[in-house]
Amino acid sequence: MTPTDPTRSRLALTKHHGAGNDFLVLVDLDDRSGLTGRVVQALCDRRFGVGADGLIRVLAGADGSDLTMDLANADGSTAEMTGNGMRCLAQAAVRAGLVTPPTFTVATLGGVRTVEFRAGGTADGPDWASVDMGPARLGAEQVPAVTGGRARVVDVGNPHLVLLGDDPAGIDVHGVGTALQREFPGGINVEFVALGPGADTLTLRVFERGVGETLACGTGTAAAAAAAHGWGLVGTAVDVRNPGGTLRVEIAPDTVVLSGPVAFVAEVTVDPAVLVAGGRP
Amino acid sequence: MTPTDPTRSRLALTKHHGAGNDFLVLVDLDDRSGLTGRVVQALCDRRFGVGADGLIRVLAGADGSDLTMDLANADGSTAEMTGNGMRCLAQAAVRAGLVTPPTFTVATLGGVRTVEFRAGGTADGPDWASVDMGPARLGAEQVPAVTGGRARVVDVGNPHLVLLGDDPAGIDVHGVGTALQREFPGGINVEFVALGPGADTLTLRVFERGVGETLACGTGTAAAAAAAHGWGLVGTAVDVRNPGGTLRVEIAPDTVVLSGPVAFVAEVTVDPAVLVAGGRP
Repeated sequence: MTPTDPTRSRLALTKHHGAGNDFLVLVDLDDRSGLTGRVVQALCDRRFGVGADGLIRVLAGADGSDLTMDLANADGSTAEMTGNGMRCLAQAAVRAGLVTPPTFTVATLGGVRTVEFRAGGTADGPDWASVDMGPARLGAEQVPAVTGGRARVVDVGNPHLVLLGDDPAGIDVHGVGTALQREFPGGINVEFVALGPGADTLTLRVFERGVGETLACGTGTAAAAAAAHGWGLVGTAVDVRNPGGTLRVEIAPDTVVLSGPVAFVAEVTVDPAVLVAGGRP
Repeated sequence: MTPTDPTRSRLALTKHHGAGNDFLVLVDLDDRSGLTGRVVQALCDRRFGVGADGLIRVLAGADGSDLTMDLANADGSTAEMTGNGMRCLAQAAVRAGLVTPPTFTVATLGGVRTVEFRAGGTADGPDWASVDMGPARLGAEQVPAVTGGRARVVDVGNPHLVLLGDDPAGIDVHGVGTALQREFPGGINVEFVALGPGADTLTLRVFERGVGETLACGTGTAAAAAAAHGWGLVGTAVDVRNPGGTLRVEIAPDTVVLSGPVAFVAEVTVDPAVLVAGGRP
């Protein structure tokens, strides 16, 4: 399939990241891309494909929203919600001229969310985006068999287990995260959280269900801040240090808002059939 | 920096892989891209950038060759030679119409090499490419302090240490590879090799100097085959099973030829200043 045959089906995507949590975004307003889980998997593969934590399709609005988000994990499975992905979507949508900043709405499986986007103050960015994540529902306290210690389940459109402990730098996130999956049928996202450094600040590492450890997780960041606020350890505006960068969470009675920088990486064009044919054996 | 400003400097690259060993290729015939090590690092970063094992610039020919290869590792440092990268370069050069297949020549730091390229038999590829790697110079037998066992240094334009042992699946490639770097001032690429399965077949894992473990290494594959041939364990045509796929090595008195599938991944366009500004903190 060399050189390029212009009659072939091709997809034009963009790649973005929020604190190192990276997403491919495909504008597919009329839902005609025919994207399959197998193509998503091939695209998100970091060696045989382009590489990303997940892929977001941007569809036409629904339920009165400006746009609709369709989110897939790197393994091709469907996911409910992504805070950083929504912030990446905001950047992609503004770049593509689909919406007018600063504020617009996006329908997700968890309901319609408000997104705010501001272009970077300098020519080289990065831009800034926030997303209203909806309410963080605090579950009961837990004592996981694998880890012991203080923990609680938080629902932020998807399920999280927030574990409070010391500096998570030394934790075997993959091992413990995998073990905890067995305690929660259906799986769960796991946040390893320490208080500080400084007031109203948390330090976190995250094990994402279906992905593994990532450099940042928006819903996990929101869940960690909500849990720490519920325990009375932080106020309503919390800086959460993810391995890939710091995100801000603002906690209101009925919602949490996640904000921070969002960076544009690349424009990417692929032929899905070629990608799948040359994919991981 | 949103949306795209057409006056900004932009780079158009392509991404390819050979057995999962992935490269970004930039056609830069007149050497005017101004690509720096910092931009290479940002581009090859798998979370904050596009992601690749290395980046190849294709320059105009030198010393009578059709083209020249300028190779950088993912960390931005210069590298001497890459078998899979040369095969990726072949695909990129033919796609860009720079050369006429099947055979052309490429100047490298190790001398002028002959490349052969054939488009895949089906519309979806993958394509096939081979590269004349030049001679594999067998060094003396070694007994590394870290591992013990049978080993030898092989020079294939860059230095390799080939360790013969059992199935490498269980080896701590990162740990042992890192430890071996201390025995070889200047560092060395390390191949963990087992004989089989089947005649004239090797199974290999590789620790690449400046990169870490990769899914496939062309020079390492050639070095492993040459070492095994030197030990009388295989003939002159050897299949080498890398984690990312199988490559073929043909050993002649004065050269080794590496061949196998090469896959096209994507066309990629970036703004270097934006990429660096949004890069890893």
